[in-house]
Amino acid sequence: MAANPRPDQGDTAPWGPLLRRGLEEDNWAQDWTTLGALATDPTRISRARWVAKAQGIWCSAGLMTHVERVASELGVSVNAKALVADGTAVRPGTVLAAWDGQARILLAMERPALNLAQYACGIATATRALVSAVEESARGRGCPPPRVAATRKSLPFYRDLALLAVRSGGGHPHRVNLAGGVLIKENHVAAAGGIPEAIAGARGVAPHGLRVEVEVRSAAEAESALLAGADAILLDNFAPADAIAAARAAKSRAPGIVVEVSGGIDAASIGAYVDASIDVISSGALTHSVRALDISMLMEGA
Amino acid sequence: MAANPRPDQGDTAPWGPLLRRGLEEDNWAQDWTTLGALATDPTRISRARWVAKAQGIWCSAGLMTHVERVASELGVSVNAKALVADGTAVRPGTVLAAWDGQARILLAMERPALNLAQYACGIATATRALVSAVEESARGRGCPPPRVAATRKSLPFYRDLALLAVRSGGGHPHRVNLAGGVLIKENHVAAAGGIPEAIAGARGVAPHGLRVEVEVRSAAEAESALLAGADAILLDNFAPADAIAAARAAKSRAPGIVVEVSGGIDAASIGAYVDASIDVISSGALTHSVRALDISMLMEGA
Amino acid sequence: MAANPRPDQGDTAPWGPLLRRGLEEDNWAQDWTTLGALATDPTRISRARWVAKAQGIWCSAGLMTHVERVASELGVSVNAKALVADGTAVRPGTVLAAWDGQARILLAMERPALNLAQYACGIATATRALVSAVEESARGRGCPPPRVAATRKSLPFYRDLALLAVRSGGGHPHRVNLAGGVLIKENHVAAAGGIPEAIAGARGVAPHGLRVEVEVRSAAEAESALLAGADAILLDNFAPADAIAAARAAKSRAPGIVVEVSGGIDAASIGAYVDASIDVISSGALTHSVRALDISMLMEGA
Amino acid sequence: MAANPRPDQGDTAPWGPLLRRGLEEDNWAQDWTTLGALATDPTRISRARWVAKAQGIWCSAGLMTHVERVASELGVSVNAKALVADGTAVRPGTVLAAWDGQARILLAMERPALNLAQYACGIATATRALVSAVEESARGRGCPPPRVAATRKSLPFYRDLALLAVRSGGGHPHRVNLAGGVLIKENHVAAAGGIPEAIAGARGVAPHGLRVEVEVRSAAEAESALLAGADAILLDNFAPADAIAAARAAKSRAPGIVVEVSGGIDAASIGAYVDASIDVISSGALTHSVRALDISMLMEGA
Amino acid sequence: MAANPRPDQGDTAPWGPLLRRGLEEDNWAQDWTTLGALATDPTRISRARWVAKAQGIWCSAGLMTHVERVASELGVSVNAKALVADGTAVRPGTVLAAWDGQARILLAMERPALNLAQYACGIATATRALVSAVEESARGRGCPPPRVAATRKSLPFYRDLALLAVRSGGGHPHRVNLAGGVLIKENHVAAAGGIPEAIAGARGVAPHGLRVEVEVRSAAEAESALLAGADAILLDNFAPADAIAAARAAKSRAPGIVVEVSGGIDAASIGAYVDASIDVISSGALTHSVRALDISMLMEGA
Amino acid sequence: MAANPRPDQGDTAPWGPLLRRGLEEDNWAQDWTTLGALATDPTRISRARWVAKAQGIWCSAGLMTHVERVASELGVSVNAKALVADGTAVRPGTVLAAWDGQARILLAMERPALNLAQYACGIATATRALVSAVEESARGRGCPPPRVAATRKSLPFYRDLALLAVRSGGGHPHRVNLAGGVLIKENHVAAAGGIPEAIAGARGVAPHGLRVEVEVRSAAEAESALLAGADAILLDNFAPADAIAAARAAKSRAPGIVVEVSGGIDAASIGAYVDASIDVISSGALTHSVRALDISMLMEGA
Repeated sequence: MAANPRPDQGDTAPWGPLLRRGLEEDNWAQDWTTLGALATDPTRISRARWVAKAQGIWCSAGLMTHVERVASELGVSVNAKALVADGTAVRPGTVLAAWDGQARILLAMERPALNLAQYACGIATATRALVSAVEESARGRGCPPPRVAATRKSLPFYRDLALLAVRSGGGHPHRVNLAGGVLIKENHVAAAGGIPEAIAGARGVAPHGLRVEVEVRSAAEAESALLAGADAILLDNFAPADAIAAARAAKSRAPGIVVEVSGGIDAASIGAYVDASIDVISSGALTHSVRALDISMLMEGA
Repeated sequence: MAANPRPDQGDTAPWGPLLRRGLEEDNWAQDWTTLGALATDPTRISRARWVAKAQGIWCSAGLMTHVERVASELGVSVNAKALVADGTAVRPGTVLAAWDGQARILLAMERPALNLAQYACGIATATRALVSAVEESARGRGCPPPRVAATRKSLPFYRDLALLAVRSGGGHPHRVNLAGGVLIKENHVAAAGGIPEAIAGARGVAPHGLRVEVEVRSAAEAESALLAGADAILLDNFAPADAIAAARAAKSRAPGIVVEVSGGIDAASIGAYVDASIDVISSGALTHSVRALDISMLMEGA
Repeated sequence: MAANPRPDQGDTAPWGPLLRRGLEEDNWAQDWTTLGALATDPTRISRARWVAKAQGIWCSAGLMTHVERVASELGVSVNAKALVADGTAVRPGTVLAAWDGQARILLAMERPALNLAQYACGIATATRALVSAVEESARGRGCPPPRVAATRKSLPFYRDLALLAVRSGGGHPHRVNLAGGVLIKENHVAAAGGIPEAIAGARGVAPHGLRVEVEVRSAAEAESALLAGADAILLDNFAPADAIAAARAAKSRAPGIVVEVSGGIDAASIGAYVDASIDVISSGALTHSVRALDISMLMEGA
Repeated sequence: MAANPRPDQGDTAPWGPLLRRGLEEDNWAQDWTTLGALATDPTRISRARWVAKAQGIWCSAGLMTHVERVASELGVSVNAKALVADGTAVRPGTVLAAWDGQARILLAMERPALNLAQYACGIATATRALVSAVEESARGRGCPPPRVAATRKSLPFYRDLALLAVRSGGGHPHRVNLAGGVLIKENHVAAAGGIPEAIAGARGVAPHGLRVEVEVRSAAEAESALLAGADAILLDNFAPADAIAAARAAKSRAPGIVVEVSGGIDAASIGAYVDASIDVISSGALTHSVRALDISMLMEGA
Repeated sequence: MAANPRPDQGDTAPWGPLLRRGLEEDNWAQDWTTLGALATDPTRISRARWVAKAQGIWCSAGLMTHVERVASELGVSVNAKALVADGTAVRPGTVLAAWDGQARILLAMERPALNLAQYACGIATATRALVSAVEESARGRGCPPPRVAATRKSLPFYRDLALLAVRSGGGHPHRVNLAGGVLIKENHVAAAGGIPEAIAGARGVAPHGLRVEVEVRSAAEAESALLAGADAILLDNFAPADAIAAARAAKSRAPGIVVEVSGGIDAASIGAYVDASIDVISSGALTHSVRALDISMLMEGA
Repeated sequence: MAANPRPDQGDTAPWGPLLRRGLEEDNWAQDWTTLGALATDPTRISRARWVAKAQGIWCSAGLMTHVERVASELGVSVNAKALVADGTAVRPGTVLAAWDGQARILLAMERPALNLAQYACGIATATRALVSAVEESARGRGCPPPRVAATRKSLPFYRDLALLAVRSGGGHPHRVNLAGGVLIKENHVAAAGGIPEAIAGARGVAPHGLRVEVEVRSAAEAESALLAGADAILLDNFAPADAIAAARAAKSRAPGIVVEVSGGIDAASIGAYVDASIDVISSGALTHSVRALDISMLMEGA
């Protein structure tokens, strides 16, 4: 459960629709500044480079194909090539991509494309920080590194892109959506009338390929979830020592159980949760509080 | 130019389509956990409260109407009421909103609605921090506070929501999109062959209601923009003293000119840019690096 | 794993968008026949009843709310009430629903609404036939009835409606979509280079809440999947006795394993697959070859 | 009126949007099984063949261009060629199409593409069965074969595809939608207050290029429709002999009238309705109760 | 064929999506002028009246329901009532509709709603002018008035609205779209190799409820179309006397044939084409060259 | 402010979505006439030319790329080339464009493409007439020509296309949408309680790059707007002499102010408004009352 596969070269994120929407929202067809700048040479051809202005993990190689496609839908031809593979660490000055084509479309696409890339690279960068901290701690403790997983705390329209970025940083998804897993939380227990009732109910309706996981807030709740037959438990807001104690207790009683910890864990604290008994460490902040990676587009002559 | 109007009670953000997309992306129709929890009482009615878990600025009152509408589109009736007006400062424990209706729809909507609200409130909170720092500095310096403005660095599909949040925090928009202003930057100057050419070109095509603003990186460029008739200048990455010196020089030569500063300014540094000669201070980070405000939904009995 | 919960009264199917599309495709705004019939009384109010013309399982109660909503979007008011709950067995002559409102909108909606209902009820009816055969056989054999599950063999735009209908008939979903489970088939084994490689690969990328299931075509392949650590096996196109033998062998070696059978099973043959060692029996035909349930709409006076 | 033209090589069905929706509904971007199978070689190139597993009529040649287009929209290149023309009879083992490209996209597209093709070929196959029965009967009776026509009983989003399939099987459309014809049924007569009123009303509003057809349930109603000037009559649920008698009576009185029969007619009974006086035989089941044609995709090495 | 029915009170035009798009295109959420005007009273309630500023035919009663619906989708409540029924002649000063609700939404909707209404009323007004001229001429000549019909020359997204307006003015549609009729023109004859070939081809594929009409440019072509069995002929660009002569010749040979004239006919010339032998007079200009009817919205106090 | 730049060769209008919608609305997949005409040779290749039938300004060069793209989305290959650049004056007989490809797609696209082109060229033609009249008058009066500007009076979905056409004719946009400028009109003044209040309010919320313009109906209102600090005034429905007097008065008091005139101005009257004190003359009719330019498509052999 500890493998951290990197996504393949191409990718499966919905860059196209997002970029198209960015152009639309930006009213690109009435870009007075650009129309004015090109007033004497409206079809001028230019080149531009994307350059990192900070250290981080790149995760927008797949965007470039869509820059070409969307431009062509608008009736203009652009070449856009990524120069760095997704998942690569970059530094200030690293040239990330090269575009050439009509200046007016390069200038129109600059902002929406950068907005997307800075977001995706920001997630990948933060994920990698957590993964590295986990790996270092695991080396020190001589155990396999737990997975770092992201949650469903992403903006509507951005679930798939966020997951691609998490995976580029070496992380994993949790449930992709409500149909892709069972995770019984406090509100569900309240509605069902108890942990056993919630587990039995979920088991009755969920497809047979899904494990039933229960979020617990204490050792007692963990015990109760195990007794009721949970396949996985999420230890929510446990201090590191408590989490490891609870995880070991669970594993000794039910060896096949999956143990996850979560709750306000960041790069500073994550190492303390690493243990052979912990399978997954998840973080909402990876996708709900994204710090953009600084990237610029420079046109030739600028 | 220094007024900081708060948005009206209702609002104009596209909450509805964003919430609908969030539910779709979350495959809410196959929410096994909830279907299981309600197996013995599928149409159970519940109540839930939204509670702030951190200090910040609230900006999701308008979402609640759309929670009701989207639920009704799905064939279910929900009451959702905001208890706090947009722009209000909240503390951990403040009850922000109250929902009641079928538990299954409350549980399905919880995550997408919170994802949206935490983002909007995060922007409002960060904006208010900048605005407060500016106001405090202005009081100290005895000058009117410059505007705090956001840029076009927002995610596709989120421009309108981001602007609502900026305004709830007391900030202002810059250009809303490419058709809503003229801002000549380095890449445009390179394409046009010079600042005067870029200004003349823009003046020729832009609607007569738009001012022509030029981004400059030095006092010499500022001078050149003024000579060529710019209506506004953006001092990019100037140190505070240099910015104020350049702004005063510009104002003494062209009293009606609008002066904006930008470039890596945060709550710690913004006060140093406050001066009677500065009209606008803009920040990309307000919308490109959003830190979610922590909010929870608690169901009765949970 | 044998519970067969019925969906709740309301439902979660996308009736609204499907009905709206049906009206559009039908160019309802230019319904000459109806405009002509109402030429002398264009806003005439009528009543209509939906009547079953064959025996089957009803599963369109949730459609009625959407008939009302879609009509109101078109600017007309209609009352549409289901008279029978989803999952109910109906006979020729059973009155299923009642509509009243302007005749022109009743006549415009008649065909698209019936097209949807006849499809959904057709699936529910076929599912119930399989479920009943399984339950009868299980009673005879003194074992718990295996689940009847549907596959991903549904038409684009109809996945959610098909699953609602399957559940109304007493069946269960398999994977809802590619993200909602892991099912390694022949083509994946070929691509991965072997069953163990495919299992290890899937385990590495899939969220921790998903079981890994492998489709096998022989006892030897089943053995190989078990050795490689599969959580579930699908016995594809096994004769009943072979399936039961393989299932028992698997369960004796790995008691927690989930065993599914599939492949051309119909109401006549399904009983022979019932055994305590079989957890799931799945059928593609439930959703790929739907026989509409015959339903008519009769207007008052007709 | 008896010609049975085959559709041209290319076709006009909306394969693209349907396939795109199929991929989306299937959450193809998170296909764990495939990502896992390709973990060590994510961009592996494969070939696949589509093979018929049953006897029937092929009608998905036009889909292949759209497989290529949709893949390219996703940023991947695929070659997809149909090997058999639409309307061709195929047998188990017939190779229908060949795909090559990245294995991950072949595996993601397999199910949605097959779901569409099996539906379209199922309709074409059923249509051909009716057409062949009509042609055989017509040869025996020495009269021209009546048309076999489909109705508006198709699922929303599938009208155009269903009609393509009907035409590939040798059938014809009836009204394509409400604007494309006039067909006065029982409910319209009830609303209008009588057959003559309904005919006069329709004649007043319908475009001059449309004939007015009336559905009748008895010889008396047929008489009344003729008297009121109907251009066509539909004999609904008439026994064969009654239908032919009524049709001959109508033709002797109004030689130019078009006569259609409908109502529960299948391949076994259709021959009995063949007569020189019958122009059209229509069947709702062709599109409301589709039995999928069995087709498999086999990847090289599988 | 000469009846000129008026549309019923409600209507079937897609006002909702058009209005929604108008608001979006207008970026209503950032309406600075209105936000500023309401700065001190953002939720101010106002009343507004729609007033005709010119003489014409009203045809936007159905829009008002959609004004209410779209406002409510945006989270605001508006009352919008039409005061005049569609098809009514109005004069400068006629009050057409009354709105009340929050001033900000009245002001945001004013322009998009007027843009739609002025277009629809413009079409209705022009149609009525042709219809009146035809009726007057028919009274003089003692024959029934031919229909006035519109063509498919309407802007994408506006077909249904244009047809509603034509009908409000007393006109009729021609083919609603390519599936709703057969009209063989010069380019089809060229492609088919002759008029008889084109007629036979169309007869073979078109649904049995459609007449086959042929556009002809000379008496010889008309003759040839009749010989080949056309059900209707369109005399294109015939002078009035020639048209009437050709129509009479056609009717004497084939009494049931429908005769249409078209080609640059306007209100001044249309009367000359009126004759008992002419069934339909069609005009492209009715929908391709629309002169807006002048309508204003006045807010109370303005 | 008087430059009249011509748009660049390519363009930024949404031809693609409009053309696609036109085909859809026209139900092109069921084009019986064309299917019939090509019954014996369904994949026949043809050539067609677009020919002007009247004098005017061409503005549809950019459409041709989209004809190619949309055809290819439908699975068919077409070559479509514009032979004349946007903004060129054409005469009856000028060949504007050439298409070749399968006859069935040429015939299906003919009408929707012409509908769009005739509209765009109609706007460009009318704009050029106004611009030419202004230029001629300015030459006579020895002053620079004021701009000719269009308003927001365009149909939903057509704003961008209308603006492209206006610019092709030598005109300029006014506000592109509500976010792209500030224009205080009678209704806003009523809501705000006075011109100064409306100006102050707008100044407080609008981005700093927008000028504040006020529409006035008398010299007194103009005076009041100037006093309150308006950046621009719109003289609404002033007689020419009054407009020039008011404009000169405003300019002498506030030299930097922008002066616009509007209100029922047409090609006959526009010259009288030309003066050195007038910057902009705007006309709603340019886009709300469009007279289509007559263009035909002729297929080879036709």
